[in-house]
Amino acid sequence: MEVTRTLARYVVDSRLADIPKSPRAEAVRSIVNYIGCAVRACHHEAVDCALAAMAPFQGPKQASVLGRKDKTDILNAALMNGITSHVFDFDDTHLPTIIHPAGPVASALFALAEYKPMSGAELLHAFILGVEVECRIGNAVCPTHYEVGWHIPGTAGVFGSAAACGKALGLDEQRLTWALGIAGTQSSGFREMFGTHCKSFHPGRAAQNGLLSALLAEKNFTSSNQVLEAKRGFANVMSTKQDYSRITEGLGKSFEISLNSYKPFACGIVIHPSIDACVQLKQDNSLTGAEIEKIELFVAPLVLELTGKRTPQVGLEGKFSVFHSCAVAMLDGEAGEKQYSDARVRDPQVVALRDRVDAIIDKKMRDDEARVRVTLKDGRVLEKHVAHAVGSAEVPMTNAQLEAKFHGLCDDILGRERAARLLALAWSIEELKDAAELCRSSTP
Amino acid sequence: MEVTRTLARYVVDSRLADIPKSPRAEAVRSIVNYIGCAVRACHHEAVDCALAAMAPFQGPKQASVLGRKDKTDILNAALMNGITSHVFDFDDTHLPTIIHPAGPVASALFALAEYKPMSGAELLHAFILGVEVECRIGNAVCPTHYEVGWHIPGTAGVFGSAAACGKALGLDEQRLTWALGIAGTQSSGFREMFGTHCKSFHPGRAAQNGLLSALLAEKNFTSSNQVLEAKRGFANVMSTKQDYSRITEGLGKSFEISLNSYKPFACGIVIHPSIDACVQLKQDNSLTGAEIEKIELFVAPLVLELTGKRTPQVGLEGKFSVFHSCAVAMLDGEAGEKQYSDARVRDPQVVALRDRVDAIIDKKMRDDEARVRVTLKDGRVLEKHVAHAVGSAEVPMTNAQLEAKFHGLCDDILGRERAARLLALAWSIEELKDAAELCRSSTP
Repeated sequence: MEVTRTLARYVVDSRLADIPKSPRAEAVRSIVNYIGCAVRACHHEAVDCALAAMAPFQGPKQASVLGRKDKTDILNAALMNGITSHVFDFDDTHLPTIIHPAGPVASALFALAEYKPMSGAELLHAFILGVEVECRIGNAVCPTHYEVGWHIPGTAGVFGSAAACGKALGLDEQRLTWALGIAGTQSSGFREMFGTHCKSFHPGRAAQNGLLSALLAEKNFTSSNQVLEAKRGFANVMSTKQDYSRITEGLGKSFEISLNSYKPFACGIVIHPSIDACVQLKQDNSLTGAEIEKIELFVAPLVLELTGKRTPQVGLEGKFSVFHSCAVAMLDGEAGEKQYSDARVRDPQVVALRDRVDAIIDKKMRDDEARVRVTLKDGRVLEKHVAHAVGSAEVPMTNAQLEAKFHGLCDDILGRERAARLLALAWSIEELKDAAELCRSSTP
Repeated sequence: MEVTRTLARYVVDSRLADIPKSPRAEAVRSIVNYIGCAVRACHHEAVDCALAAMAPFQGPKQASVLGRKDKTDILNAALMNGITSHVFDFDDTHLPTIIHPAGPVASALFALAEYKPMSGAELLHAFILGVEVECRIGNAVCPTHYEVGWHIPGTAGVFGSAAACGKALGLDEQRLTWALGIAGTQSSGFREMFGTHCKSFHPGRAAQNGLLSALLAEKNFTSSNQVLEAKRGFANVMSTKQDYSRITEGLGKSFEISLNSYKPFACGIVIHPSIDACVQLKQDNSLTGAEIEKIELFVAPLVLELTGKRTPQVGLEGKFSVFHSCAVAMLDGEAGEKQYSDARVRDPQVVALRDRVDAIIDKKMRDDEARVRVTLKDGRVLEKHVAHAVGSAEVPMTNAQLEAKFHGLCDDILGRERAARLLALAWSIEELKDAAELCRSSTP
């Protein structure tokens, strides 16, 4: 059984023309979502700390930290962009594995693209393959691998980054197999790190270490040819489940990128149905805060368990408050990063409406379901039932919604005009002669 | 139960004056052995590949790759020196865990010492603490952690490097706790990698990643405070055994460095008793190859199972041949790296004697025991029984033997005179005003 080599051979042999239109389009949507998240977080303290720590030791200014004027060497850039892609927990999710696929793969590829010229189509192709590799490896070990405590965007992501960079570098089958081996023997990241900077360090290091693996393999740094399936390799050491057929079967026929999803709201997924209902009620009825007497949420028990914070004081606490989330969604018609700033959480107008939000547990509700009833001061009562929130597999975000999310993330950083230009470039990535144009256009 | 914080507090509070003379002396011996191994391997293809791959991305030329004229940034230097410390499998061994303690810790500290000035005593102190941390963590999870497939010099080594660098940087208790957290969430390395460049990549990355962890923590990059003991932290995720008392009890009273051992011969430990007997027979009787009619080895069954190669053709095969090993030991009076070159394995004089070596299995022999009988052409028969080979816990290498090993490793690289100067500096590390003098003196 040749698991690792089979995967490597697929990556080496794949041509972009072999990838159907639909997964290619989903890959472009993933890139759009990725860039928005990374640009938004470019001045987060996690990346400020990391840049400050690395400053005296970095190499030539080869590659962009997306959204910033700083450049750094490509390995460092891959780390920083991986951190920013995830630090707001607003990135994409491969639903079967809860891998956030774009971060490790795109962060490495965009860094590499500024050093080794490649077309947008070449980058997109390598991206699709990297996502395929990390998600298939995730499928083979999920859910037990995650349950035991591994943070899978890091542990599986490093394989995706190595495969994508290996493809972009034009590695042959042996070197790509080694790259997967070098990547695998660096696979790491504990779920214990949630709530600290180290959580977003995981996709950052996955991006950086995967890129490093491909660069080492290119120069004939040797590794095992069976890192995935060996007795003392990845699947046996880091999981009690090993379903290798999920790695080797249907290669080139099904595409994991097609199972990618995006978050419309910058908070835990359990609040999304309630927010979705509030946004729809506001938009359908052009509601203002002043008109509203009270808002009643009928929600699954898990909602109050996880996000029942009544009086949040700072932005991060707001993410754990279904009350703040629904109040601000009703006022702003959205719930992006801006709606979770410290200032917005303390805004008297938001607080006043928040105090008129009530949540009633309905045990018959599924976790991804909610019903919202708004009573207006004029006596009218409006209701909205959301069976599946936007962003779920059943109701994916539309391209227009992804654009709105992108602008919500990037306009404060880049200005509306540059954000629009960057967005247009991202949508047209397949036509770009030089993929690095995207990186260069991400700075204010 | 505060495991991680207890360990961090010990490292922060420790003063060199608290460390008794005997573990300090053992630490100096470990450093001597480390430098010899690293210098010898400085042109090994693994480090040549890695340096070539990193060349376009490295930072300022801050630190030495021991033995080479090349300098590179301190993170890169830590990686390279970690690789060279282990690539010949000639480094030290902490017998209870089979961690090779010096590689990850000393490689990071010597790199750091060229950037952040520290005295030899300060470096030695940080080294002792780093070894203490990695070996205690190893004790807590051994042997099950290793048995499942983790290569413990990498997985535990990264903690040692982080603790040592954190001490050298003067981190406070919180930052040192974070440094251990950042290190732990990078803990990785599969035993599947044996036989490839990735095996020595493990201590290399442990050195580099531990140093990175300390540098990040210094700039307030946050991590868990319980990486060792948390439900989804190191010991629970990466081991079925968790004996935290081995981490927290007796801190400052017992010293793991005291359990360090060194290999006198550059091959698998199972051949060492036979080689030891041959070397003693040669020295005691001033034997030459021409005088010898035949050599008979009486050995444990494992010896022929692992090292029964009758006609090795290249140096690496020689390491798996008890016949070559004993022939060359009888001719040269040693069995260092030089005795395992391709040329020496094919040397007609060595081959001629090798063909007169016979090995007889004695099931009553322990694995670390051997008896050798030499029949001379003049009819005399000489015998030597070795109950425990030199380098074992029972018969540690003397300082004179460590010196001979050092010269055997370094003279070809540095020339006899510079090697002698470097060795003298290493012995006197506690008196050095600037520890980096050792790095600067390691180049030819």
